[in-house]
Amino acid sequence: MSFKGADVVSIRDLSREQIEQVMDLAEELVPYATGEKSTRAMEGKILGNLFFEPSTRTRLSFETAMLRLGGRFIEIAQPQSSSVVKGETLADTIRMVEGYADAIVLRHPHEGAARLAAKYCSKPVINAGDGAGQHPTQTILDLFTIRQQANGIADKNVVLVGDLKYGRTAHSLAEALGMFGANLMFVAPPLLQMPKETIKHLEKNGITPRLSSSLEEVISDADILYVTRIQRERFPDPAEYIKVAGSYRVDNALLREAKKDLVIMHPLPRVDEIAPEVDHTDNAKYFHQAFNGVPVRMALIMLVLGGEL
Amino acid sequence: MSFKGADVVSIRDLSREQIEQVMDLAEELVPYATGEKSTRAMEGKILGNLFFEPSTRTRLSFETAMLRLGGRFIEIAQPQSSSVVKGETLADTIRMVEGYADAIVLRHPHEGAARLAAKYCSKPVINAGDGAGQHPTQTILDLFTIRQQANGIADKNVVLVGDLKYGRTAHSLAEALGMFGANLMFVAPPLLQMPKETIKHLEKNGITPRLSSSLEEVISDADILYVTRIQRERFPDPAEYIKVAGSYRVDNALLREAKKDLVIMHPLPRVDEIAPEVDHTDNAKYFHQAFNGVPVRMALIMLVLGGEL
Amino acid sequence: MSFKGADVVSIRDLSREQIEQVMDLAEELVPYATGEKSTRAMEGKILGNLFFEPSTRTRLSFETAMLRLGGRFIEIAQPQSSSVVKGETLADTIRMVEGYADAIVLRHPHEGAARLAAKYCSKPVINAGDGAGQHPTQTILDLFTIRQQANGIADKNVVLVGDLKYGRTAHSLAEALGMFGANLMFVAPPLLQMPKETIKHLEKNGITPRLSSSLEEVISDADILYVTRIQRERFPDPAEYIKVAGSYRVDNALLREAKKDLVIMHPLPRVDEIAPEVDHTDNAKYFHQAFNGVPVRMALIMLVLGGEL
Repeated sequence: MSFKGADVVSIRDLSREQIEQVMDLAEELVPYATGEKSTRAMEGKILGNLFFEPSTRTRLSFETAMLRLGGRFIEIAQPQSSSVVKGETLADTIRMVEGYADAIVLRHPHEGAARLAAKYCSKPVINAGDGAGQHPTQTILDLFTIRQQANGIADKNVVLVGDLKYGRTAHSLAEALGMFGANLMFVAPPLLQMPKETIKHLEKNGITPRLSSSLEEVISDADILYVTRIQRERFPDPAEYIKVAGSYRVDNALLREAKKDLVIMHPLPRVDEIAPEVDHTDNAKYFHQAFNGVPVRMALIMLVLGGEL
Repeated sequence: MSFKGADVVSIRDLSREQIEQVMDLAEELVPYATGEKSTRAMEGKILGNLFFEPSTRTRLSFETAMLRLGGRFIEIAQPQSSSVVKGETLADTIRMVEGYADAIVLRHPHEGAARLAAKYCSKPVINAGDGAGQHPTQTILDLFTIRQQANGIADKNVVLVGDLKYGRTAHSLAEALGMFGANLMFVAPPLLQMPKETIKHLEKNGITPRLSSSLEEVISDADILYVTRIQRERFPDPAEYIKVAGSYRVDNALLREAKKDLVIMHPLPRVDEIAPEVDHTDNAKYFHQAFNGVPVRMALIMLVLGGEL
Repeated sequence: MSFKGADVVSIRDLSREQIEQVMDLAEELVPYATGEKSTRAMEGKILGNLFFEPSTRTRLSFETAMLRLGGRFIEIAQPQSSSVVKGETLADTIRMVEGYADAIVLRHPHEGAARLAAKYCSKPVINAGDGAGQHPTQTILDLFTIRQQANGIADKNVVLVGDLKYGRTAHSLAEALGMFGANLMFVAPPLLQMPKETIKHLEKNGITPRLSSSLEEVISDADILYVTRIQRERFPDPAEYIKVAGSYRVDNALLREAKKDLVIMHPLPRVDEIAPEVDHTDNAKYFHQAFNGVPVRMALIMLVLGGEL
């Protein structure tokens, strides 16, 4: 099974075997991602990073991934400094940039943008998040972190907590976790619970997630606690927001009810969802999760461009 | 004849022999520009890209040109993030950056900026467009594309269509095409026809361009159709703009009247001047033209910095 | 004495011996900074440049320093394009970026930011200016320029002129010059004279600076004239500003009263403090001073990352 020349648009396009192939290579690449070992696998290759909305974490980790592989990048980091302001279509921008780069990484505010780009581009396109759509490299790095930190995914109790309705990250991750045989628990205020479409998709694949609105109720069973942000803008009443946000806040008091080796994750940036005191516990894995963006993105770049260590 | 250490400010500074030297080297560099072959000709060299106005295509292609040569770049891509906002003069900015780079690429909103920069800079300065002034690397890549796609320039019928009055690209290209012996046809609404100064300059050199306001009238004679954008802002009456813009739109219906191997070019970004259906024809060469910015800019960088493959 | 793994937050953290070690290495690195010689000392290393406020000169010279050492960088050059706008704390941003880079360079609008970053970061942090706080690499490059251009620092008569009250650069430089045994003269309008805290700090170390409000009065004694900008905003009355600014302007008439080999410096950008006519004199060393940011920053990067030529 070869990735060479392929696009990475949606996690749904990838089989379980393909995701495992990415994760296995990412594991091998960890010492290269830290700089401990060095490689020129991508020497002479150029990545075209097109970020049409701000995304520091994703952008910088793709940059480092390419540099650690010995490759280089060119970049649009500011939509307002690009031809887009002169009314150019995405299809035209893509056909220009494919003349300047060996693969394209696209971050775009509109759902479907990556699929469109892949259609027009003869070079591999990696989706780095397209609005309410997909963000497959985030999903794979989340799976990779769980596999690495909890010693596997199957049969682990994974609690997703926070805004599960609008949080793009949560939908894709839930589906992928289902594919890998995790036990799923969705914890959210009723208005922000996981969409029925995602739950039906899981049930069709034989997974019945447990739903709850109380973190206290499920915390003692969790092997992994994946926290996402609840945005103030979702609540018409600010008082209601404060009440809800407070009840899903992860702090040391909550951890006393949890398994000793609970793995806490967060896609970052966080605001108030995790108390700073938690950072000092061994359970806090969210900064390591951010680092894991490097080996996972290195693996994907190498696979679509066809390099060897 | 040596370019080493020279500035590239205006196409008028270059002789026909020098332009041919750039194009010959660019042709040799095409496989390096695509990444098929690799070179370290510019290893250890740093290009200082100063973009004081947005220009994605020019900026990215200079970046790729330098990277494909094994060199590196530093960059101001955002005027608002630079010392300029603190009131620094261009002469001072240039004398700072020349301490950090081996050559400077300058894009600036004001005509004459590149000449001023070259005056103050002891390192080579390449003009990447200065307002209503010159954009010599664009002119050379246009000539190179014609030579490459139409098998030569002399005696070819080149139609320039669109806004020929305000379009910087069109004036320089017309003069350079005249120097290379092309037959010129200028198609524009009367208000946007080529300036008399440019026509006189051509006539002085023995070239008599054919003027027309109708694309239908000349299309069957054209070997190359170079399309430029007509800007809405030029027309006080929006209805007038729509009528005019529509009559210069290139689509498949128009192509039925054209030679089979017509070469269609556009400096990009395009808006409505060329219908998307044309993209699928063999006549559409504008994306390849954009790519040609890479080998042409590689050639100029190598010539002014004095490297060897 | 080893710098490896150390942070460079404040000039006050460094001993005289350490600063000399940086300057000695910087001197050795000059031919590498110009590109005359090349090194791969930092090959495979990544610098994380976080510029949360615009600073072209500092940013570009850190970029060039890292490139001339054979290393690479990733960068936030635009605060508005970063996670910061999503409410992320600096501590979180730093703990993310330390997963992507081998050392961090931080420019931040708030005093104390670099100290905070160093506290949270396990990799070396170099302060590239934090608001009204410290800018240690500027201080060292100023010392280095004096040592280089005036053949030493001890017993030289150094005049600091301009806004000495609010100018961050001036306070740190004055203290460092005191440590190296220079004779100090502070020339400023009474409202903008050097803060008493700095003067007391100097007197405690046995240095008694000479204070004056007249540049004419001291110019004939000066070996080095370090000019800083007087900002219009400091004066409630515009007429008062014009009068004051005019009286501290350096021009050729003033230079007639000066020593023949006077060294004129300025941290740049300058506005009106130095007349353009002065640029053509041998006394003008401010552009060379800007260049010196490269070898000095190369030296610091090599020392904290532990590389060898």
